[in-house]
Amino acid sequence: MGALKPRKKFVTNSEPDRLDEIYRTAAEIIVEKGFDATSMNEIADAVGMTKAGIYHYIPGKKDLLYALMSYAMDHLDAQVVQPAREIPNADDRLRFIIQRHARLITGERGNKRNGFLSILTDELAGLTLTHRRKIIERKREYLNLVRETLDQLKREGRLADLDTTVCAFSIFGTVMWLARWYRPSGPLVGEKIADEITKIVVSGMFKS
Amino acid sequence: MGALKPRKKFVTNSEPDRLDEIYRTAAEIIVEKGFDATSMNEIADAVGMTKAGIYHYIPGKKDLLYALMSYAMDHLDAQVVQPAREIPNADDRLRFIIQRHARLITGERGNKRNGFLSILTDELAGLTLTHRRKIIERKREYLNLVRETLDQLKREGRLADLDTTVCAFSIFGTVMWLARWYRPSGPLVGEKIADEITKIVVSGMFKS
Repeated sequence: MGALKPRKKFVTNSEPDRLDEIYRTAAEIIVEKGFDATSMNEIADAVGMTKAGIYHYIPGKKDLLYALMSYAMDHLDAQVVQPAREIPNADDRLRFIIQRHARLITGERGNKRNGFLSILTDELAGLTLTHRRKIIERKREYLNLVRETLDQLKREGRLADLDTTVCAFSIFGTVMWLARWYRPSGPLVGEKIADEITKIVVSGMFKS
Repeated sequence: MGALKPRKKFVTNSEPDRLDEIYRTAAEIIVEKGFDATSMNEIADAVGMTKAGIYHYIPGKKDLLYALMSYAMDHLDAQVVQPAREIPNADDRLRFIIQRHARLITGERGNKRNGFLSILTDELAGLTLTHRRKIIERKREYLNLVRETLDQLKREGRLADLDTTVCAFSIFGTVMWLARWYRPSGPLVGEKIADEITKIVVSGMFKS
């Protein structure tokens, strides 16, 4: 699909792990320092490469930002959106989306950089207009999947008397905020948080 | 209190409306363009002032960012945190906090810049370390108020079997996300959204 293009441009098939490392490190630095305050030199230093070496992977800083966001959206697509589309039951689908997206952010056992990639998808100001539109379009597809799922539940008489747009954005808010507060070193386990968030959201929207 | 200091530094008592206008416009520009990409010249242009004129109010860009955040936190404090502390009943207090904070973001009848000030409070990367600590400390006070309210509800046996930290951040996520999606020109009315969000969150966390 279209969104994979920027990734393919920068990587040969033998180096996906290296690129993954560069992307996650770059996301972490950009979120902590701000996009404009981050230089390609710093990113190169952080991943132990020369400046020339990093330009082998990524042509420039604006391209890097778009590549990072596309990478985050590809992950979301592969791990959440596509598998969710295969689930015919709306109740199961909604729970799957919330649970899986939350787990994507908290990461598998201490991978602390997942959250940074998630936060970065809001840094639309740093993109070119064309790239910005593409990211917004991908986000909209995800929004529509969630809203259609809620509409289906409403038709089935399962949902409380609520607006499905408000419900959809409340889900995103709860899940995306995780990236801003969850710390793998903290006392709360990612899997338990994902369970609780799913419980809160679902019981808040469903008829009791 | 301490947080009012930066505001007082830049304003004489006769000019609060002018400063309010500068702050709201600056917040909007910074959120849309990014902090580093925004110049003091642009902000001056947007509010119809000379560059010298704007420096009469604000000594520099980093100070401006801190002043904007302090201003947003002052509003939150006056409109949500302080009145909430006067409410002895935990259930009423929780509903008041969610409802009032959501209304602060959607604004009174079409004041479209409230959301930008709210989004800006996450731009911690642009602050000096000292200022960053102060903003984080103010946010923590608010978090503690919400969490203590939830703990009180838990002791009263009202809350479902959930972690109150996860609950508190789920509330913030749902409410703060409003600033990123709500459009005063859209079909949804701010007051109705605030009601629905309160309903979703409260019924999601309370025992049925």
